[in-house]
Amino acid sequence: MPSNTFGRYFKVTTFGESHGPAIGCVIDGCPPGLEISASDIEEALKKRAPGKNPWVSPRKEADVPEILSGLFEGRTTGAPIAIMIKNQDADTSKYEPISDLVRPGHADSTYRLKYGTFDWRGGGRASARETAARVAAGAVALKLLDNITIHAYLKAVGGIEAHEVDLSYIEKSAIFSSDPSQEPLMLAQIESAQKEGDSLGGIIEVRAQIPAGLGGPIYHKLESELGAAMLSIPASKGFEIGSGFKAASMKGSEHNDEPIDFRDSLKTKTNHAGGVLGGISTGMELIFRVVFKPTSSISQEQTSVDLSGNKATFKLPTGSRHDPALCIRAVPVVEAMTRLVLADAILANQLLAPKNKMQASL
Amino acid sequence: MPSNTFGRYFKVTTFGESHGPAIGCVIDGCPPGLEISASDIEEALKKRAPGKNPWVSPRKEADVPEILSGLFEGRTTGAPIAIMIKNQDADTSKYEPISDLVRPGHADSTYRLKYGTFDWRGGGRASARETAARVAAGAVALKLLDNITIHAYLKAVGGIEAHEVDLSYIEKSAIFSSDPSQEPLMLAQIESAQKEGDSLGGIIEVRAQIPAGLGGPIYHKLESELGAAMLSIPASKGFEIGSGFKAASMKGSEHNDEPIDFRDSLKTKTNHAGGVLGGISTGMELIFRVVFKPTSSISQEQTSVDLSGNKATFKLPTGSRHDPALCIRAVPVVEAMTRLVLADAILANQLLAPKNKMQASL
Amino acid sequence: MPSNTFGRYFKVTTFGESHGPAIGCVIDGCPPGLEISASDIEEALKKRAPGKNPWVSPRKEADVPEILSGLFEGRTTGAPIAIMIKNQDADTSKYEPISDLVRPGHADSTYRLKYGTFDWRGGGRASARETAARVAAGAVALKLLDNITIHAYLKAVGGIEAHEVDLSYIEKSAIFSSDPSQEPLMLAQIESAQKEGDSLGGIIEVRAQIPAGLGGPIYHKLESELGAAMLSIPASKGFEIGSGFKAASMKGSEHNDEPIDFRDSLKTKTNHAGGVLGGISTGMELIFRVVFKPTSSISQEQTSVDLSGNKATFKLPTGSRHDPALCIRAVPVVEAMTRLVLADAILANQLLAPKNKMQASL
Amino acid sequence: MPSNTFGRYFKVTTFGESHGPAIGCVIDGCPPGLEISASDIEEALKKRAPGKNPWVSPRKEADVPEILSGLFEGRTTGAPIAIMIKNQDADTSKYEPISDLVRPGHADSTYRLKYGTFDWRGGGRASARETAARVAAGAVALKLLDNITIHAYLKAVGGIEAHEVDLSYIEKSAIFSSDPSQEPLMLAQIESAQKEGDSLGGIIEVRAQIPAGLGGPIYHKLESELGAAMLSIPASKGFEIGSGFKAASMKGSEHNDEPIDFRDSLKTKTNHAGGVLGGISTGMELIFRVVFKPTSSISQEQTSVDLSGNKATFKLPTGSRHDPALCIRAVPVVEAMTRLVLADAILANQLLAPKNKMQASL
Repeated sequence: MPSNTFGRYFKVTTFGESHGPAIGCVIDGCPPGLEISASDIEEALKKRAPGKNPWVSPRKEADVPEILSGLFEGRTTGAPIAIMIKNQDADTSKYEPISDLVRPGHADSTYRLKYGTFDWRGGGRASARETAARVAAGAVALKLLDNITIHAYLKAVGGIEAHEVDLSYIEKSAIFSSDPSQEPLMLAQIESAQKEGDSLGGIIEVRAQIPAGLGGPIYHKLESELGAAMLSIPASKGFEIGSGFKAASMKGSEHNDEPIDFRDSLKTKTNHAGGVLGGISTGMELIFRVVFKPTSSISQEQTSVDLSGNKATFKLPTGSRHDPALCIRAVPVVEAMTRLVLADAILANQLLAPKNKMQASL
Repeated sequence: MPSNTFGRYFKVTTFGESHGPAIGCVIDGCPPGLEISASDIEEALKKRAPGKNPWVSPRKEADVPEILSGLFEGRTTGAPIAIMIKNQDADTSKYEPISDLVRPGHADSTYRLKYGTFDWRGGGRASARETAARVAAGAVALKLLDNITIHAYLKAVGGIEAHEVDLSYIEKSAIFSSDPSQEPLMLAQIESAQKEGDSLGGIIEVRAQIPAGLGGPIYHKLESELGAAMLSIPASKGFEIGSGFKAASMKGSEHNDEPIDFRDSLKTKTNHAGGVLGGISTGMELIFRVVFKPTSSISQEQTSVDLSGNKATFKLPTGSRHDPALCIRAVPVVEAMTRLVLADAILANQLLAPKNKMQASL
Repeated sequence: MPSNTFGRYFKVTTFGESHGPAIGCVIDGCPPGLEISASDIEEALKKRAPGKNPWVSPRKEADVPEILSGLFEGRTTGAPIAIMIKNQDADTSKYEPISDLVRPGHADSTYRLKYGTFDWRGGGRASARETAARVAAGAVALKLLDNITIHAYLKAVGGIEAHEVDLSYIEKSAIFSSDPSQEPLMLAQIESAQKEGDSLGGIIEVRAQIPAGLGGPIYHKLESELGAAMLSIPASKGFEIGSGFKAASMKGSEHNDEPIDFRDSLKTKTNHAGGVLGGISTGMELIFRVVFKPTSSISQEQTSVDLSGNKATFKLPTGSRHDPALCIRAVPVVEAMTRLVLADAILANQLLAPKNKMQASL
Repeated sequence: MPSNTFGRYFKVTTFGESHGPAIGCVIDGCPPGLEISASDIEEALKKRAPGKNPWVSPRKEADVPEILSGLFEGRTTGAPIAIMIKNQDADTSKYEPISDLVRPGHADSTYRLKYGTFDWRGGGRASARETAARVAAGAVALKLLDNITIHAYLKAVGGIEAHEVDLSYIEKSAIFSSDPSQEPLMLAQIESAQKEGDSLGGIIEVRAQIPAGLGGPIYHKLESELGAAMLSIPASKGFEIGSGFKAASMKGSEHNDEPIDFRDSLKTKTNHAGGVLGGISTGMELIFRVVFKPTSSISQEQTSVDLSGNKATFKLPTGSRHDPALCIRAVPVVEAMTRLVLADAILANQLLAPKNKMQASL
């Protein structure tokens, strides 16, 4: 069953396992004429890379993307763009002692149930390493997003919520926080979890300026596409747009955003809608949130079972490196998936106005 | 841009507007040999129908499904199953006075922005009437769901939450409540909103017993497909699975469900995962929630603008009929979409084991 | 396994059996704003209808298309367009005596092998009646084909080939012949086959003026899409473009079309290419041919087997009505499929130039 | 517009240009548990490789496939299989002098018309080098084809037809001929064209033993899928199945294959059908033919135009290497595409019988 392609018009197929020779993606459907370089992709990958500060996994990955196809004289040609990122020589030996145990919170067990086999080295295909390919594809998608700005940031971690949204602060923050005053509390919370050998969950919020009219109604609503995209990111447990779960205790008179203009787009006094109505963007700010569970890999000893179902003690090998709160490094992944959804939606809208009806040929 | 088909293997394409001649669906990919009748579909539609009690819209719709194709001697043949539900003679005149106003909270405005045109009669294609076609398709999908049970119920409405989950009570409840003790409070809340000419939001929860191994990893994770399905239902604002948004303030040591068996499926002590790991079902109960905003149509006078952007007073015509809390009638729709997702996932799993190569291992 | 949808952007899903309540189609992806009416579709269906002259089946079908959705004030809205054609009260009793025999040349047997069941009434889903739905969809697709002209005609029947291509004659001919001087021979051949209770094969040729740049390279080449489309028509046995099978005995120096201009499109002295190079249209005339086998239903007695494999005599019931040469009535179907392929290709080309990069929003 | 993926269930996406860093493919949907190795793929590539004998291009390509993902302990895991073949250091300088001319018979011109750009080095994406990726994918697909045998061979070249079909001879023939007695004439014809600096067209025939029941009816007929597959191969100009174009001058009484058994499959006295009825395989031998035009690259001087439309003399650089008859090296490509179509059809059939509902009946 094919399940490794994202998008309908800007189609991204990813491949690769954590400890295989390489991971990567093939982008099919990228329009011609876009300027793109390996360094664009490298820069995007750096945002996601571990080892940059004390609050993320200390592992070092030198993610060097190689563009194998689809470019000519620095521009896209309309042909598929294949991007490969070689895996560094990974030490598989560490995983061997636990390869016959069910890793709590991890997908090893379900992959085994589904496929009858599993490449357990570093989590194999289920490893979050696959998200590097998404980030690479997102860097290409970005080229299609003129007049669109996307900001993704850590809204909450370990129970500490941001109160302020200072979009200009995000880039300065080591943990993609939007709130300089709450950030120290967040960092303290992370450090405390690290000391306990534990991990934290969190929420990522996205705000984007996008044009009106994006999103296909009925089964390809913008929120539906965004939800699917976000819930495809490892460890995500929920998605909400605009008012989200708060809508459950609101009244219609309160939730209905009062329309105040409707010339180029729909302007409303409030934005409980989060920028969409009926699956189509209004032109107001797009706002949604994604929740991530705490990292499943923790240093504490856990109780589990082996592959035969016998009770067993599960303990990660000493020196295992993992993120205390994967929601931090998920921020650029959420951003990349947002780019992919929007690039797809922009291309989809092209199908509304056939060229030979409205204007001359290309 | 095509956007009216749901599913990859059990493909459902819906059509029709609220006040057009008919709505319906075509199901392509239904295996042959399944016994099905128009009354199976009619029964499913009845659960969704309005006018049954004081807490839903008083409108009367006699939804009579006609099966146009795909059956022979009472069984599916593998050919597409077309189901048509004629619309009753709808009175469009009521909508005329407000047809040049932006309806607050509705999709009229975004359809206009996207398509440059809109069939405003009864909400046209954006009307929740389209969900009747989903329910019809869900009744067919159900035939594929042997050994699977799905329960959908009203978890919260207007701020009143269910405390208890009594699955056997749901069918008895006029509002699909699972909690006989909280139900009177819910009903009172609904009545109070009705009196104020206002509306309420709510949350629907689903619990399903499903086999392990369902869901495609990476971009077709079970939660991703479910999320997309639920967020495609009109008025939904969010989706969460298992721990959901609560995961944001949990620790890994707490969130990781302790594995206690792994022979036929993964059994765990707790179920924060909600029945999925890495996008694949564990075999534990599938649990997710969908939030619905309050009905956008309310009887109160609202401020809005006309299609040229001029301030205008918006008031629904006297005698307009709408649901005080659409989350009630959304319950069978959520159930139908769950069926569609699971039918698709079951068929997808067939692709893992080519018949002529190996035997079924699921 | 879903197999009833044609097209990627202008998606047509057909449904219905020969003797079921109705056949029809749902078109998803049709752009908004196109003027269309039931009479456009009815007119297209008339070209395909039987009973018009002595050289086609004497059966009478009053194909009245009902447009169930997708139109508002006479124009498309971007919503799915469902078209239904009710089947006339069909007399199934005639088929009963032969329902347990293998019909030579027909698909009853393979449907049974594949699905384990078959709606044998009138050929069920395998009946060429399904092509009426294609013709209906083609009438809608035509609205997208500005500056495109398509001519389909009978190139050969029963061994009699057209020598001349007089495009203006096609409409006047009862058998879609392009050659007034060969037509009498063709008609005589058909009449002779009718007398013998036999049937004839034939070839349909298409010539179309289309813009350069249509067709996706690699796996969606224009000839690949056209070939798939034509080979999906019942009874077709082959497809060739430009030089076609004659290319097998040509030399490169002879086959290479000499380029004589390359400003707006590629102009060449000859056109062995048939209007495509590398899967993309050159701007020269598109020329291709489709071959149809003789009608499988003949009045002569045939030897066959019953469903248990026992030898049996097969004889169509007296009064059975069938086409002496189905390639005649296939002409409008070939034309319709050409329209669908070109409409899809035109929409596909829209994806090359994202609106928000090149121009303002719609 | 995405156009680089083939297949619906066994999905193959290819990438790469003739003179870029690498070509390759990603296979998504391959079931788990299949044994596969790089040498399986290498062996398949060798059949297609040039430079092996005097009758094909003297170019040397050491096609070394690298499997980047999807294997664990020598078996497929269900994860995408990425295969990369690095391009040898290609000498682009030779193409420079002709890079501003329209190459007669080639796709450079149409790619330019469509995309506004073209990677002209070695034919870029339009180069037949892309077919190496198809052959690699076909080697994987083969693992799914138990109890299926496929033979592809040169049926005709330069007007010389094979009279005999000796399937055991094909492997021994340098030009994939099935006819030892006609082969010398074919070789002489090829040599004569080589001396003249010219090229030849030809026909490839395929015979395959496949089970009954393969092929989706209506729009995914087996002949439709095969036709699309074959017409996607560079330089193909036509496809026919069974009687093919000969059916045009046959009568129904002659063309109808007399059924002689119908227990496990449909057995008929003759096989004009070519192994399919109504798009579904009968169980009789699958027989089809593909025609290829003569190689467009010839050594003779040709008249063409430059990119501005001015008349120009076109002459390939001295020492250019090309195939005198590309239909020879197309044989393994035709075989590979046949494998892909059949693997897809086999997987598609899995969708007919949900494991948890009924047992396999194929």
